[in-house]
Amino acid sequence: MGERTGTVLDTGELRDIDAYWRAANYLSAGQIYLLDNPLLREPLRAEHIKPRLLGHWGTTPGLNFVCAHLNRIIQRRDANVMYVLGPGHGGPAAWANAWLEGTCSEAYPHIDRDERGMRALFRQFSFPGGVPSHVSPEVPGSIHEGGELGYALAHAFGAALDNPDLLVACVIGDGEAETGPLATSWHAAKFLHPRRDGAVLPILHLNGYKIANPTLLARIPHEELDALLRGYGYLPYYVEGHEPEAMHQVMAATLDEIVDVIGAVKRGERKRWPVLVLRTPKGWTGPAEVDGMAVEGTWRSHQVPLPAVRENPEHLAALQAWLRSYRPEELFDADGGPVESLRARVPSGPRRLGANPHANGGLLLRQLDLPDFREHAAEVAKPGGSASEPTRVLGRWLRDVLAANDDAANFRLFGPDETASNRLDAVYEVTGKQWQAQLLDSDEHLAREGRVIEMLSEHVCQGLLEGYLLTGRHGLFSCYEAFIHIVDSMFNQHAKWLKTSRRLDWRRPIASLNYLLTSHVWRQDHNGFSHQDPGFIDHAVNKKAEVIRVYLPPDTNTLLSVADHCLRSRDYVNIIVAGKNQLPDWLPMEEAVLHCARGAGIWEWASTDTEGEPDVVLACAGDAPTLEVLAAAAWLRDHLPGLKVRVVNVVDLMRLQPDTEHPHGMTDREFDALFTTDKPVLFAYHGYPWLIHRLTYRRANHDNLHVRGYKEEGTTTTPFDMLVMNDMDRFRLCIDVLDRVPGLGVTTARLRQQLVDTRARHHAWIREHGEDLPEVRDWSWPY
Amino acid sequence: MGERTGTVLDTGELRDIDAYWRAANYLSAGQIYLLDNPLLREPLRAEHIKPRLLGHWGTTPGLNFVCAHLNRIIQRRDANVMYVLGPGHGGPAAWANAWLEGTCSEAYPHIDRDERGMRALFRQFSFPGGVPSHVSPEVPGSIHEGGELGYALAHAFGAALDNPDLLVACVIGDGEAETGPLATSWHAAKFLHPRRDGAVLPILHLNGYKIANPTLLARIPHEELDALLRGYGYLPYYVEGHEPEAMHQVMAATLDEIVDVIGAVKRGERKRWPVLVLRTPKGWTGPAEVDGMAVEGTWRSHQVPLPAVRENPEHLAALQAWLRSYRPEELFDADGGPVESLRARVPSGPRRLGANPHANGGLLLRQLDLPDFREHAAEVAKPGGSASEPTRVLGRWLRDVLAANDDAANFRLFGPDETASNRLDAVYEVTGKQWQAQLLDSDEHLAREGRVIEMLSEHVCQGLLEGYLLTGRHGLFSCYEAFIHIVDSMFNQHAKWLKTSRRLDWRRPIASLNYLLTSHVWRQDHNGFSHQDPGFIDHAVNKKAEVIRVYLPPDTNTLLSVADHCLRSRDYVNIIVAGKNQLPDWLPMEEAVLHCARGAGIWEWASTDTEGEPDVVLACAGDAPTLEVLAAAAWLRDHLPGLKVRVVNVVDLMRLQPDTEHPHGMTDREFDALFTTDKPVLFAYHGYPWLIHRLTYRRANHDNLHVRGYKEEGTTTTPFDMLVMNDMDRFRLCIDVLDRVPGLGVTTARLRQQLVDTRARHHAWIREHGEDLPEVRDWSWPY
Repeated sequence: MGERTGTVLDTGELRDIDAYWRAANYLSAGQIYLLDNPLLREPLRAEHIKPRLLGHWGTTPGLNFVCAHLNRIIQRRDANVMYVLGPGHGGPAAWANAWLEGTCSEAYPHIDRDERGMRALFRQFSFPGGVPSHVSPEVPGSIHEGGELGYALAHAFGAALDNPDLLVACVIGDGEAETGPLATSWHAAKFLHPRRDGAVLPILHLNGYKIANPTLLARIPHEELDALLRGYGYLPYYVEGHEPEAMHQVMAATLDEIVDVIGAVKRGERKRWPVLVLRTPKGWTGPAEVDGMAVEGTWRSHQVPLPAVRENPEHLAALQAWLRSYRPEELFDADGGPVESLRARVPSGPRRLGANPHANGGLLLRQLDLPDFREHAAEVAKPGGSASEPTRVLGRWLRDVLAANDDAANFRLFGPDETASNRLDAVYEVTGKQWQAQLLDSDEHLAREGRVIEMLSEHVCQGLLEGYLLTGRHGLFSCYEAFIHIVDSMFNQHAKWLKTSRRLDWRRPIASLNYLLTSHVWRQDHNGFSHQDPGFIDHAVNKKAEVIRVYLPPDTNTLLSVADHCLRSRDYVNIIVAGKNQLPDWLPMEEAVLHCARGAGIWEWASTDTEGEPDVVLACAGDAPTLEVLAAAAWLRDHLPGLKVRVVNVVDLMRLQPDTEHPHGMTDREFDALFTTDKPVLFAYHGYPWLIHRLTYRRANHDNLHVRGYKEEGTTTTPFDMLVMNDMDRFRLCIDVLDRVPGLGVTTARLRQQLVDTRARHHAWIREHGEDLPEVRDWSWPY
Repeated sequence: MGERTGTVLDTGELRDIDAYWRAANYLSAGQIYLLDNPLLREPLRAEHIKPRLLGHWGTTPGLNFVCAHLNRIIQRRDANVMYVLGPGHGGPAAWANAWLEGTCSEAYPHIDRDERGMRALFRQFSFPGGVPSHVSPEVPGSIHEGGELGYALAHAFGAALDNPDLLVACVIGDGEAETGPLATSWHAAKFLHPRRDGAVLPILHLNGYKIANPTLLARIPHEELDALLRGYGYLPYYVEGHEPEAMHQVMAATLDEIVDVIGAVKRGERKRWPVLVLRTPKGWTGPAEVDGMAVEGTWRSHQVPLPAVRENPEHLAALQAWLRSYRPEELFDADGGPVESLRARVPSGPRRLGANPHANGGLLLRQLDLPDFREHAAEVAKPGGSASEPTRVLGRWLRDVLAANDDAANFRLFGPDETASNRLDAVYEVTGKQWQAQLLDSDEHLAREGRVIEMLSEHVCQGLLEGYLLTGRHGLFSCYEAFIHIVDSMFNQHAKWLKTSRRLDWRRPIASLNYLLTSHVWRQDHNGFSHQDPGFIDHAVNKKAEVIRVYLPPDTNTLLSVADHCLRSRDYVNIIVAGKNQLPDWLPMEEAVLHCARGAGIWEWASTDTEGEPDVVLACAGDAPTLEVLAAAAWLRDHLPGLKVRVVNVVDLMRLQPDTEHPHGMTDREFDALFTTDKPVLFAYHGYPWLIHRLTYRRANHDNLHVRGYKEEGTTTTPFDMLVMNDMDRFRLCIDVLDRVPGLGVTTARLRQQLVDTRARHHAWIREHGEDLPEVRDWSWPY
């Protein structure tokens, strides 16, 4: 587009917008450096300086520049604008703007808009007991944690979905632009519906440097960058320079045009979404040189441009000169608050960037209308007497949820490419997959409007869902179990966000992030070893117990009950692991609901310990383990009718932890009532066996606990062979019982050999015939 | 570029190349379907068909087409070409081509090039006891596991580094192209040195569909796709169509031109690297329609186009017609091997795609020349008598390693942007950061040639390193600890690759993948909660013990020793966690070497249990925990001189596991000798405390083990405050001792209160002053 030279701003507006920017820059530098003397009422002395200088200046003035100009757009057009600040190191900018507009003081009354408040603002920043140096949940107006880079644009698109009047301005640092998730998030515009969804304005902020390197996008020819952005499907605008006055004029004119183009797109004109490239010096307006080295415009301004202010009088003087260069006496009144002309340039009420209710999504959250999941119950005349595909049935309920909330437009499904593969395709009876790229007659379920979004990027799916939830809506991410590790680190950040935001009164609870992990480790028929990994649960339970919930429903009815529970919950991450393949139905619906409410319990119909203590406990968590445990229990009943076997099923994994560790944890008394204090417990678990040990090592009976689970053995083979390879098959479990119940080994040598032979026979048969023996494939609970 | 129409191939060459392609397609379909009757010598019957049809046809014919034409280039130019097949679902293609060229039979003699061998080839595919349906380590010629998508291009660039004569042809599926890692891997060309490195030819294979969706890149306008690829810095060529004869001609002509352009780039001409866009129907040459639904050219051909061959006679007949359409009688001789004219079109010896030694990197691996790390030893006159920055010293040794192996050009460092931040910057004395984008005079350490590669994408760093290692070289990835989770899933795939390839005799051992995780959880001064996560270790130890090693060197000398050990090792993933901040030196070099060799041991100089059993064991793993444990031991010696305290340090974390679980594991006898069988053990651990329980729950003294570690409490604060927040500070450890040593509590109530008060005093002081008290900051071992 080239540079614009028109003078859009009249003298007054130019003066005020520059004053606002200078004020924000002053407040930003103050946060990094000053413990005291915030208004420089006296000459700076070493004791005014923080002992540890921790923060990131480099990106900050550019962010302040963006905020100043967004405020202008908001005021002129009464626009509904929120921001996502990808260069999350720019915490000082977010705080400076929140303070200037008053939203900081509303959330934190001790940080008022006066000298005392300014001192508190400075002091809290990157200081023990204060706030981190990144944009964080503590900042009013943010839905995006800074620091780990890559997710800004996906968050912005997630926020824009179903918010037709919202404009999400998303600043993308040129460092972040190098990450994979960001590099593919540009494509998310191909899902956004021009009228039903809001708009995202990506602002690619090229300041040229990362911590210690130039950035790639700042060092390629202009025509290459232009081609890249056009290739991503955008219409690029450029604002490039460093002279403040000229930059304000160009920025204002360009933003005016961009907002007009966005309006045209939203009215249905066939235009591309705009993107703004803002090229400014790193550390803009900061010290040009320090100790003879160039700082402004280089990576040396990434963090603290003047590093030795407390010890080095020259640095101290340079800091004072730098701060005075913003002319604070023109910006702040006698009390230390922003002068009137500056306040007048701030939008009012909920239009302020720090007060936009979308950025505190809990304020807007509406309870989902949840149809009764019991209507989809599998009929269970006797345990295992029927069979169903759990996720297929769940898909029917999700269809009804989508239909019931269609008007509210506040529930969406996300997945890489697997909604149908995961057998949730009933949802396509009421909605489609949203898609704005080319459509062909042969396409199925694709639509311009739809409540499912599929893109082969787990990162984008996760990012869109996070953005959607953080702005007050509901959703579900369905994913192959093994590949959810792709977003391990994104999950980390979201869980950390939840932990922190739960402790902030002014942040209202949001809907939980719900994962449905299916096509799981035990049923990867089309795929091999590379698709087998049940370790996401292990990863998740490292995070704070207060935000993590893990469910392993053993059949269709329990899955329905768990899913309903999760969609009602707030501020958690819920992980549901459930198979998509045909599986026996164990529990009638009312029993399923009760079992899920308890989280773990004895299945008396499968147990033979009706009188007194059992000889052995067979425990299970997960659908495949439950089937094997029941088959083992039946075999034991047949072959050792005198043995008292108790079957325990765990659906809510966190029940295993002590109640002192997790809100769902059982007391020792409850735990002992299920697992006894001294009998052998064989636990068949869906994932890596040591997780069960980790959750239970403090329990009285832990020494008698023996866990079977996945131990990294697998390939493309039959379902039963997978169990055999990992020593979790029914026969192996029976052998374990014979080996572990005291006294049993002697009398059952023949039976044991029979089990060993049976395993070997199965193994050989499978390798010869390529499928499981019918006696396993068609096994059902016989009692 | 538009389509080419010239006729490059003469009749004979066209006939043969088409025959090769038909043969590969026949063999591919055969693998998916046939248990027997591989040459269709009799009419197909149900019992010839596999009971479970598992595989992916859709991408396969396109891959075969690419292989056929790569063979032509290799033969005509004696080119050194290897492939990376991103659409890893195309396992049948990789196997078909390996069988046709004879490399399959060389690795697996029972799969000879005759009818019996063809039957074995078909049978093993996606069959119990056989090989997975994805391109996997079992396939000769591959360095890339299929299935989880996103890493093909980074692997290809990693393979090309320092291999100036190598051309890596990298097929990228249009599904994979949507992933984040792939979307940013295009930029890796900006690091490749035209002459010193090899070439990568990305082949973007647009077949239009994923499992259930069209792909984004196949549904954007041509000019948008063209702009995107030019924006990524490439010169795009297009081969689009479906009519075989025309496609062969265009492909041959285009590849000829592309290889010429690559040659020109490598000679130093200022041209862009080419990219080939190959647009062909999904499931090309497969059934056009099944049950009245279009299959060829749609997502319905993604897996098994004819799903019911065994039950449905029409499907069976369709399969027979499909297979016969390739005219197998023209392709295979009486014995069932490829006919002579077909064999003549296959490159010979190591030029065959399945035999390129770069794809079995262990064949080319040369031991690194490792300078003596002892020369960088920190002098330790007494424990803690000096201090150093561990990673800074390591950087000096790495500098020497780089210098010593400069001629061999087989060692590289990779990192997102943090080599200097992680204080390894001594390496820049002998090398630079490789970079082909714009250079400015003000840049430091950037160079056209250099052995460090930094890009703000952990995915690309990891992918480049994997590709570099798999082709027989050495490397190290240094990364902020928390953000290494970004590559959790890539690590999974590499660890799985290693597990499988170790079991294949013909795959030779490769250098280990070495992680240096620094800027770790306890010292995130500039950053907050979002940068704190020590859980990568937990993630890693879920993988097979035989490939995972975890080291927590407590000081500089142990870090040097560990690093030397890791660079010598093979076929592992080594995780080293070490701080970059100033730290006391504990062990003189020879003691450090011995300690690292033992992996864990009693530090007698810090212990007071010289006679008999201790009263309490203070154990530690990690640099911050070690410092706290020593400070606690000193406090106890001062205040409770009669208490017998044993200090145990663990540097090799896997020593804690039983020897039955991990090759490095201690026997129970060894473990008990360190940790006793009945005394309280307080263990201060770098990461999440439960990992220590998980590793030790089978030990005799486990019930007495109490672990302190990171428990998700943190923000931007001082180092000591981080310890206090997570209850791992020295005072807390002393309180634990008082509380846990039997009988001590009664007599020490006053001391305990003193400790409680001291903690409170520190906490308050830090919040007031913003830094740690000097008595903690400057503490050193006093004895």
